[in-house]
Amino acid sequence: MSFLGKHAIVNNTVVSSSEATINITNKSYFYSYSVYESIKVLGGKGIFLKEHLERLFFSASGIDIRHPFTIDQIESSFYTLLKVDSIEEATITITLVGGVESSYFITAANRLKYPHSFYESGINVITYYAERFLPRYKTNNLLVNYMGLKEASSKGAFEALLVNKENLVLEGTRSNLFAFKDKEVFTSDEKKVLAGVTRDKVIKSIEQLGYTLKLEAPSLEKIKGNYYDGLFISSTSMGAMPIGKVDEKRCNKEIEFVKDIALLVKQLELQELH
Amino acid sequence: MSFLGKHAIVNNTVVSSSEATINITNKSYFYSYSVYESIKVLGGKGIFLKEHLERLFFSASGIDIRHPFTIDQIESSFYTLLKVDSIEEATITITLVGGVESSYFITAANRLKYPHSFYESGINVITYYAERFLPRYKTNNLLVNYMGLKEASSKGAFEALLVNKENLVLEGTRSNLFAFKDKEVFTSDEKKVLAGVTRDKVIKSIEQLGYTLKLEAPSLEKIKGNYYDGLFISSTSMGAMPIGKVDEKRCNKEIEFVKDIALLVKQLELQELH
Repeated sequence: MSFLGKHAIVNNTVVSSSEATINITNKSYFYSYSVYESIKVLGGKGIFLKEHLERLFFSASGIDIRHPFTIDQIESSFYTLLKVDSIEEATITITLVGGVESSYFITAANRLKYPHSFYESGINVITYYAERFLPRYKTNNLLVNYMGLKEASSKGAFEALLVNKENLVLEGTRSNLFAFKDKEVFTSDEKKVLAGVTRDKVIKSIEQLGYTLKLEAPSLEKIKGNYYDGLFISSTSMGAMPIGKVDEKRCNKEIEFVKDIALLVKQLELQELH
Repeated sequence: MSFLGKHAIVNNTVVSSSEATINITNKSYFYSYSVYESIKVLGGKGIFLKEHLERLFFSASGIDIRHPFTIDQIESSFYTLLKVDSIEEATITITLVGGVESSYFITAANRLKYPHSFYESGINVITYYAERFLPRYKTNNLLVNYMGLKEASSKGAFEALLVNKENLVLEGTRSNLFAFKDKEVFTSDEKKVLAGVTRDKVIKSIEQLGYTLKLEAPSLEKIKGNYYDGLFISSTSMGAMPIGKVDEKRCNKEIEFVKDIALLVKQLELQELH
């Protein structure tokens, strides 16, 4: 990811990007005792920013990070950064590091974009046996995600789906997972996965399209047995993206439903710009 | 942990400690894609330094961190830091961060020491249900360890023992676990835990004392049922330290055996000084 912004925010203060550093002896960050959010900026606006900030504070609270910061303060810092670097479009990362001296960092990078073909033909994914620790919270304890994604890349796949010991497929390394069949859509409940901001928009869209949501994680057996009509993942940067192959095996993909979902999610995004 | 050294090493170069920093946009460290070692320095010498460096490289290789560094080079950097800050006694941390631009950091802190009473009366520990991801490797994916230890501290305990889904007690958050009964000593095999450098010295000492090592993890049921004659943990900073209470319940503690182990481990350490 190439760096976009000249500046960054450290605790309310604008600094040059090169100064947005953490000392290696900072034990909190060393122990992955920090939480973060990635936010899409379009037209100079943080899309679903309030929801991201609420989740940031939910994650912090989940691992008992105590800090003196408020949502309003971080929102204000966020827009200060957009202003100082004249940012209209970007992916912004906010990291909140715990410890006696808690601190937050805001940095900007190029907005993540994916080829049109991913949405037309579906992406390749692999399955990866691993469980995230405290999956409801978006922490920097990310080695599972990193290793899963690394293995996916090495096999020419775009994402790795995390499979737990009960052979349930809970989520991707940086996405939520949905499976659908007939008029039902299946996804894990929020106790076992990250409650994605875009996942929430997908759920709203599902209902709008007359489908029923079932809070049950798709099973590996049903995925491998091509039981579902289709599978897709969702994330802030991806929106809703259809899956074409799992572990190199082609799976059913009723693309049209996923395209409808993607469109509705996009519309919810655009509403934020007004 | 208060900071001891004025200087630090970053990739072969001596810098001021305040310059031993990582940019928050460094994705490898952000994803906990890094490994580390903590080494005890006595009399200006890194105790079991070669073994620590070999394990550092083993950990790096285990998560596929590619880097251009050699053990000799990092050893040389280690002694450069001791020299430049005239360090006779300390805890030194070496961190190797993966990624396209891999890098290593060496920093010094006060040597960790514990009250004599811990060794005389045994420490209090809690049990904590959680499993480390890729437990053989000493990575910075440490949130499990951090949260476990945090819970221990909140209950006035010194360490948390990690219990897996099969109710086996594998290791502590920063220590290995041993249980003994009659002339047998039980500890997890190296596939499920960190192969501690001090664990290795304990194993050598066990055999020297005429005990038999059984590579079986102690079970929670047996610990709670006071089946064992005693329990102890080991680490670089602690040596061998007896456990007096588990989850606030007093357990058997044949202190003498643990003291004998601690003494033999200490002797192996002192041999390093010659």
